[in-house]
Amino acid sequence: MKVVVVGIGLIGGSFAKDIRETHPKVCIEGIDANTSHIEEAIDLGLIDAATTYKGLADADVVIVAIPVTVLAKELPIILDYVGEETVVIDAGSTKAQICKVVAEHPKRRNYLACHPIAGTEYSGPSAAISGLYNGKTNIICEVEQTAFKLQEKALALFEKLGMRIRYMNPDNHDKHIAYVSHLSHISSFMLGKTVIEKEKNERDIFDMAGSGFESTVRLAKSSPAMWAPIFEQNKANVLETLTEYINNLESFKKMMEDDDFDGLYEEMNNTNRIKQILNGIPLTKK
Amino acid sequence: MKVVVVGIGLIGGSFAKDIRETHPKVCIEGIDANTSHIEEAIDLGLIDAATTYKGLADADVVIVAIPVTVLAKELPIILDYVGEETVVIDAGSTKAQICKVVAEHPKRRNYLACHPIAGTEYSGPSAAISGLYNGKTNIICEVEQTAFKLQEKALALFEKLGMRIRYMNPDNHDKHIAYVSHLSHISSFMLGKTVIEKEKNERDIFDMAGSGFESTVRLAKSSPAMWAPIFEQNKANVLETLTEYINNLESFKKMMEDDDFDGLYEEMNNTNRIKQILNGIPLTKK
Repeated sequence: MKVVVVGIGLIGGSFAKDIRETHPKVCIEGIDANTSHIEEAIDLGLIDAATTYKGLADADVVIVAIPVTVLAKELPIILDYVGEETVVIDAGSTKAQICKVVAEHPKRRNYLACHPIAGTEYSGPSAAISGLYNGKTNIICEVEQTAFKLQEKALALFEKLGMRIRYMNPDNHDKHIAYVSHLSHISSFMLGKTVIEKEKNERDIFDMAGSGFESTVRLAKSSPAMWAPIFEQNKANVLETLTEYINNLESFKKMMEDDDFDGLYEEMNNTNRIKQILNGIPLTKK
Repeated sequence: MKVVVVGIGLIGGSFAKDIRETHPKVCIEGIDANTSHIEEAIDLGLIDAATTYKGLADADVVIVAIPVTVLAKELPIILDYVGEETVVIDAGSTKAQICKVVAEHPKRRNYLACHPIAGTEYSGPSAAISGLYNGKTNIICEVEQTAFKLQEKALALFEKLGMRIRYMNPDNHDKHIAYVSHLSHISSFMLGKTVIEKEKNERDIFDMAGSGFESTVRLAKSSPAMWAPIFEQNKANVLETLTEYINNLESFKKMMEDDDFDGLYEEMNNTNRIKQILNGIPLTKK
């Protein structure tokens, strides 16, 4: 089996790791705009060699894990190069625009639109980890647009990596993911910003920070190169969730100003049911 | 040594656990408005017996771990009951009002104002865990108001529990902690609320939630009985931080509306330095 990974960072590199572990005879080649990433990925044993789009023709699987705005430009070109038996899988955190740009592509049936919901706040080839996808959800969109044999090939791979599959249409994907992922990142980035701005004058403030702060600002370590394009591509949905979030914060503030602390208690008490909801998230069961 | 724990939940119970482990001959008694908590704490071996305020007179150490509004009412009464050699330590997340209510108390010198920055999102006696305070920061306020011998007694105890001590005045404590702790909780509670409101109509949204969401909403599991009083007592500082946070979110939203994604990139890139800051938080080194 020959696999080509386009974009050999946290996501692409972790795919490479797990594919090598589950398919000992695989040959994995890499493509990355950043040549130092290629060298690093070879040194780390993530890929066997560098390649170019010309190397896509005889690939069995192509995994594309690049920022979503670049993906929207590159995916049609990648499809131009692939062979008849090649399945192209992406890992983009948005799906509507990506599906749109290839909707009329003559090789649309070689593409399977995916969003593996997995990652960490780190990036680059050295951030790649084994087992990242084990037990994680992989959202597949417009599955019926992919050739049946290529669906099978991709699903067999995901199964070996231990992923749970969910099918969804691209618009619903983008709408829902804005709430459970994109908004969390904004909330965290702006929390980090608010506290850093304060800290400029008050150096020892962080001596007082505990694990609660660490948990809420963890996502503020995330890669801007990945996230600015996500906010761009999912603008309408993200603006909607962000507006609702700000409204809720404003109403919390109003209750504080009105000394309605019983009301605040009720608000927090109602939100406590997030406990049950989080217990339902598969990856938290570990 | 005789220790009395007033409020035998996560914080008081974890103190009891560690004190028993480090002082095998200790006798620990408990006081709690909730009688089922007392029974549970005895069953769990956190305390040896229940007591009342009358039992405070011959206590060496009294640890008060109750919601801060209740603390403001009870602390003067507790001081009325304690003996000359008793040191009363609190664990309140706000310090200015607490220090104020006992400022003129004839037994002010028996009280050491503390805020151990440790905890989890769980509550009640069963949430008590060993080693909770090991390596954590304990902010002590107005240390000079406490009798020297009683300071020594408390510090010896904190040292055995592995705590780092920081001295601060109550107003600075309340101002700083609003940023690094209280705001995180509001951010998390309102994030949870925003997503739950959406989820009412869209049941499977949480199937898409990953570890990033889990991390940012973790604090939304926290006890409203603890947090409503904190927001009440630290109202002015919390309102200030909340206003700055909302302003930052509004400016992020404006940049999105203006399609200024390069600006968003810069914002996130600047905030990435939270990585270095978090590396400086002692408890993250574990």
